Amino acid sequence: MNTILKGACIVGQSGGPTSVINASAYGVIKTALESDFITKVYGAANGIVGVLDDRLYDMSCEDAEELRLLMNTPSSELGSCRYKIADPKKDDSDYKRIHEIFIKYDVRYFFYIGGNDSMDTCNKISSYMQSVGYECRVIGVPKTIDNDLFGTDHCPGFGSAAKYIATTCAEIYKDAHVYNTGMIVIIEIMGRHAGWLAGSAALASVCCCGPDLIYLPEIPFDMDKFINDAKSIYDKNSNCIVAVSEGIHYEDGSFVSEAKVSSTDGFGHAQLGGLAALLAHNIKEKTGAKVRGIELSLLQRCGAHLASETDLNEAFMAGEAAVNAAVSGISGQMVAFERSCGSDGEYLCSTNLIPLSSVANLEKKVPLEWITKEKNGVTQEFIDYALPLIQGEPERATENSLPRYARLKKILAK
Amino acid sequence: MNTILKGACIVGQSGGPTSVINASAYGVIKTALESDFITKVYGAANGIVGVLDDRLYDMSCEDAEELRLLMNTPSSELGSCRYKIADPKKDDSDYKRIHEIFIKYDVRYFFYIGGNDSMDTCNKISSYMQSVGYECRVIGVPKTIDNDLFGTDHCPGFGSAAKYIATTCAEIYKDAHVYNTGMIVIIEIMGRHAGWLAGSAALASVCCCGPDLIYLPEIPFDMDKFINDAKSIYDKNSNCIVAVSEGIHYEDGSFVSEAKVSSTDGFGHAQLGGLAALLAHNIKEKTGAKVRGIELSLLQRCGAHLASETDLNEAFMAGEAAVNAAVSGISGQMVAFERSCGSDGEYLCSTNLIPLSSVANLEKKVPLEWITKEKNGVTQEFIDYALPLIQGEPERATENSLPRYARLKKILAK
Repeated sequence: MNTILKGACIVGQSGGPTSVINASAYGVIKTALESDFITKVYGAANGIVGVLDDRLYDMSCEDAEELRLLMNTPSSELGSCRYKIADPKKDDSDYKRIHEIFIKYDVRYFFYIGGNDSMDTCNKISSYMQSVGYECRVIGVPKTIDNDLFGTDHCPGFGSAAKYIATTCAEIYKDAHVYNTGMIVIIEIMGRHAGWLAGSAALASVCCCGPDLIYLPEIPFDMDKFINDAKSIYDKNSNCIVAVSEGIHYEDGSFVSEAKVSSTDGFGHAQLGGLAALLAHNIKEKTGAKVRGIELSLLQRCGAHLASETDLNEAFMAGEAAVNAAVSGISGQMVAFERSCGSDGEYLCSTNLIPLSSVANLEKKVPLEWITKEKNGVTQEFIDYALPLIQGEPERATENSLPRYARLKKILAK
Repeated sequence: MNTILKGACIVGQSGGPTSVINASAYGVIKTALESDFITKVYGAANGIVGVLDDRLYDMSCEDAEELRLLMNTPSSELGSCRYKIADPKKDDSDYKRIHEIFIKYDVRYFFYIGGNDSMDTCNKISSYMQSVGYECRVIGVPKTIDNDLFGTDHCPGFGSAAKYIATTCAEIYKDAHVYNTGMIVIIEIMGRHAGWLAGSAALASVCCCGPDLIYLPEIPFDMDKFINDAKSIYDKNSNCIVAVSEGIHYEDGSFVSEAKVSSTDGFGHAQLGGLAALLAHNIKEKTGAKVRGIELSLLQRCGAHLASETDLNEAFMAGEAAVNAAVSGISGQMVAFERSCGSDGEYLCSTNLIPLSSVANLEKKVPLEWITKEKNGVTQEFIDYALPLIQGEPERATENSLPRYARLKKILAK
């Protein structure tokens, strides 16, 4: 393996936004701009779609201070995509186009920030370039609020989303307990297949304001049991806060959120409202309680004003590690996090590398032993795992007490 | 008027919670505890209901530091109520009971923190005590995120809710603009009769991330016009962010949120989902766009982690001013805010007093001249009015990077 490789790099962002994916991009961009081996740094507009469309931003045109503000800017500043690249054995036209663009700009480094699907894209590009003998180092940078990537202790983006969820649950708890008359609140949290985010609601119990019940997609949902669980807590406390993953499904695999309306409606129309509204409706019918369904929606994944400093710094570190690995000669790997314990028992995190092929299209779920026996909550092990990831309040750039986001020029390379 | 009056005081909280109503309570409690004229400080459990039920917390039993943390604690820590006190001419049993409790605890000062209805309660209690010759000074402290109280430049609670809304809108803007494929987002904001909160979404335009369209309850809603407005922006930009007040209603006064489902459904069932879901559904039908309805729900009124320092300090100041006014001999008034301009043009705020009778049951709406000619946004005057109210990031007490709320002992007086 030839270690020294000079050429341009492309960094792209893919999949759903997070509060810290721009910190990873900044980690890549800053480290690449400072590298002796990387001759030019391009940002792909809307991920791989920007490569295919020859829409690459020249990062050397940006002000250093605006780039630094990427640390403060939620969502994917370069733009994202959900483009699914074909299997090269079936259709290699995308790969030929990518190869063409790589040649045009002398791209020798490709960094892609995203989740499972993006790692699959990375892996396919890496294999294709090898197969055509084009030397290019490809490194994946993990990103997902869902925390479901295989082979890494946790994922950048999760800690900040978890912090948003826990803080918001604590605030909702305070609000919902204000009246002498009781209330049942259902909080719908993201996570289609893994319950890491819904489980994070339990972190609010650390400040005495946790939900009473949590339902994760790892356990088949039982509507009757849910109603009994909630009713018995409500009967006892005149109050009940429920956190529920959007991905909860019945034993047969059908999502609860896709359920038709309850029997009292009788016409079987799909609801305009989401899962929280549906569960709130069902529990209201059985208890007569005042209910409220709250969907945290996009707010939980883009709530950068509540970012975890730990998450933010690790997201940057992941981008930095990707560039350092690539210039040292490595390719076809994803940056992963390894957790360890400091001499005083404190949380430490370092990066390592795992083959892209081992990550792509796999999902890491919440271990069943971290779910309570009653199947309506998470254990202390879950809290011990997640709590270090939400620590620290980063400095927030503001103007007029509103967020001051990066303002990039986004000058297209020619 | 006898100026010197010695006796106990009661402070109560009423109506919907806000991020800073506890700051007003702290303003009352701290000032009262330090007063030479106030012999005892009681907090009413759940507002006037706690007085009727003889459930009063002895505030002198609380740790000073925990009381100080009320500045950091959303919702109403003493508990709230929505109890509507009767007209004393029709039924004076509640008043007799209150009088009895006032005599029992030698209560000579009554401070009530709340909105229009609470000022009405205050006013009635004040009049009754006068009519029976019981000397007791009654002062109202304004509170409402809705900002609709008459006679005050603005209301404690509004600034923090406005800041939450503006910051959240900016984050949603970032999220919704991430893909190369477009999106229409409808954000449902509180405010049943006045559009101050929905209008505050426009503050996000100060950081370049404002909504494209804003609909306030001050203007009758026209569904066809809304769809045309949104469609034309979407057609132009592939994106459209809409902020809408929950209180929008048709020309005939019926709330849009209470509308039956659209014609495609045909069975006329009320929706489980709210207004945002309904509007998102309608606009999706007409544009085919990807849509998302987001209801800010309780989050906007209890999002204390994003409190405005200005709002927080003013909320405290209102509580303090209430006590100072009462011990100086004043009664039957509400603390109000007066805005002025400093020598450098900076925003200044001081308190004055207005008769409770002039506030009770009135609503202050957004001036029509602050709504754009197109009736789908607010003018610069609105922004100039609201922007000073969201300024400043207060110090936030945290533990494990989660909010550290006041932990009161709440020892009942006997």
